[in-house]
Amino acid sequence: MLLGFLPVQAQTHASASANDTIRYVDASQFQIIGQITRQGLESPYDRLPAYLKDSIRKELWDLGKNSSGVAVRFRTDSKRITARWEVLNNMWMNHMTPVGIKGLDLYTLEGNRWIFVGSARPGHGKAVFTSRFIDNMDGQMREYMLYMPLYDCATKVEIGVYSRSKISGPAPNVYFPGKPVVVYGTSITQGGCANRPGMSYTSILSRKMNREFINLGFSGNGRLDYEIARLMAEKDASCFILDNMANCTAPMLDRLEGFIKILREKHPETPILLLGNARYTFTRFNTVSAKEVAEKDNRLSEIYNKLRRTDKNLYYMSAQDLIGNDEEATVDGTHFTDLGFIRMSDAIYPLLDKIVRKTE
Amino acid sequence: MLLGFLPVQAQTHASASANDTIRYVDASQFQIIGQITRQGLESPYDRLPAYLKDSIRKELWDLGKNSSGVAVRFRTDSKRITARWEVLNNMWMNHMTPVGIKGLDLYTLEGNRWIFVGSARPGHGKAVFTSRFIDNMDGQMREYMLYMPLYDCATKVEIGVYSRSKISGPAPNVYFPGKPVVVYGTSITQGGCANRPGMSYTSILSRKMNREFINLGFSGNGRLDYEIARLMAEKDASCFILDNMANCTAPMLDRLEGFIKILREKHPETPILLLGNARYTFTRFNTVSAKEVAEKDNRLSEIYNKLRRTDKNLYYMSAQDLIGNDEEATVDGTHFTDLGFIRMSDAIYPLLDKIVRKTE
Repeated sequence: MLLGFLPVQAQTHASASANDTIRYVDASQFQIIGQITRQGLESPYDRLPAYLKDSIRKELWDLGKNSSGVAVRFRTDSKRITARWEVLNNMWMNHMTPVGIKGLDLYTLEGNRWIFVGSARPGHGKAVFTSRFIDNMDGQMREYMLYMPLYDCATKVEIGVYSRSKISGPAPNVYFPGKPVVVYGTSITQGGCANRPGMSYTSILSRKMNREFINLGFSGNGRLDYEIARLMAEKDASCFILDNMANCTAPMLDRLEGFIKILREKHPETPILLLGNARYTFTRFNTVSAKEVAEKDNRLSEIYNKLRRTDKNLYYMSAQDLIGNDEEATVDGTHFTDLGFIRMSDAIYPLLDKIVRKTE
Repeated sequence: MLLGFLPVQAQTHASASANDTIRYVDASQFQIIGQITRQGLESPYDRLPAYLKDSIRKELWDLGKNSSGVAVRFRTDSKRITARWEVLNNMWMNHMTPVGIKGLDLYTLEGNRWIFVGSARPGHGKAVFTSRFIDNMDGQMREYMLYMPLYDCATKVEIGVYSRSKISGPAPNVYFPGKPVVVYGTSITQGGCANRPGMSYTSILSRKMNREFINLGFSGNGRLDYEIARLMAEKDASCFILDNMANCTAPMLDRLEGFIKILREKHPETPILLLGNARYTFTRFNTVSAKEVAEKDNRLSEIYNKLRRTDKNLYYMSAQDLIGNDEEATVDGTHFTDLGFIRMSDAIYPLLDKIVRKTE
């Protein structure tokens, strides 16, 4: 095999099943995870229910259609797995890969570990794509998890398998046990700039903890809108993570107490983890930004220390060392690469795992 | 500051120098590093000299115009640093960020460490871009290294600084000492799929080892062309790395002895490091590919063991554990993300550092 730059070149092989045909099945018939609700959606992989469309800021609604963290669970014994999908916006961004923005990502379960199988990569131009995840599998029945686009909406996703292969929903006993972790936040939370959909930190932690995560990261818009707090409060979560500080000015953090109060009204005991400002690597040199971030972190600490006096289930984690200190973990000084997201997940995991275990 | 998704949003601040104007200077007047030769180039950041244009395969010539690993060294005291540049192909790829493909990347020297400052990110559409690396610096004179695009050719690059700021070539005493490491290889060698230009493994190792690296990675075309061996042999290197195995079939490796012989004729003692096939994560599931890779690795080991009998400066490093074993370090099953490149650099560094020190 020659390692070329095109996936077709890299994965085209003579195969025992070469003459077999691919049949496509609609992915939305299988189990969908990573959504705060399955009720009243405008499109199957949306993150926000349609009733919010006219009552929240347009930016939030539009970003809620980005399917970050949403995944489909299924099983198949097909030796080849492909996808055919269409996206809503066909977004382009200069610091993120097209496969991260609007591609798909496939994992399989081995023992109790989720392992990357392959990504489905969009074409240029028109917004309907076909791509192959993997070929020449051994033909055993396996459990799969297929991640949806991080910064676009896959309006229709079809999974392609050999026509004589079996495909169905997941075995019930391998579904994530326990209550989900609900994460509210920014572009970084949403997955900017993971190389492929499965590499946002909520998805990495989900696999690591064998637990459903619900991603409510809204690029540039984690500004403590109370409508989002009310939506989150509908969910019986094992933990709420508020990772939105980067989208707030210090004065905007005045809304934080109100946001937490909405969660607490329905969930007086559920752990809430406040994540500090992720350290932008450019604040090492940008003296003005460094001052602003320090100011915000101080304000957040103040609020945490005040609330903590009466709320023993409130936690705080500084983000100063979240992605290491070599400054290499971002693409642009702010948004994390896969390197940053792996480091962030490793940093959060010990505390979060402890917090979540306490609830069970 | 609000963390938005656009660099302008993320880095626009009221500044003491806001009314100052930016002047642009041509980057090619400063010191250019990372090229096997500075003589007879068609364009200032090309990797191959023009005399090869009609004698090598067209694919090699075209890829030689990709400026992977080429960098400009300069110093300035400007509080703001921007870039204006134009690219030859305005390439698009679905598994790599535009900033990695055709953007620029800026590092500065702190003590003896090179630290990421910011990336300059291309726009969509037309092939002339303007972007800001950093703002609100402290105004001290600093040393910089500006990396050129990995998968495109920057035909013209201008550095923007405040009009009253100083800019010049680097201080002579901070230039990389010692002979360069010359690396021949594939798309992975060329930097596919680093998130930004400074994150290819040759550039990471260059910063880590404080040594010039010359990147001769040719995407899909590391097929042991003897013209490239002859070009490499022109250089007085501290080490030659052959990282091209992924682009060869097992029979193609028959050319390896001839390739090494060309290097040995001029450099009988210079260390040569053979890197094994990088482990494609998809070979965990793709049974056909797994067999092909094993076959090639066996062939490479055979050749190494044969040559090693008479060549004590020949080294071999298996690539089996190069990027860890969690399968998370690629974007598509083959090409490394920044996570993969950091792991690869960490894996190669101990042996390479030992090899290179022996030559001095």
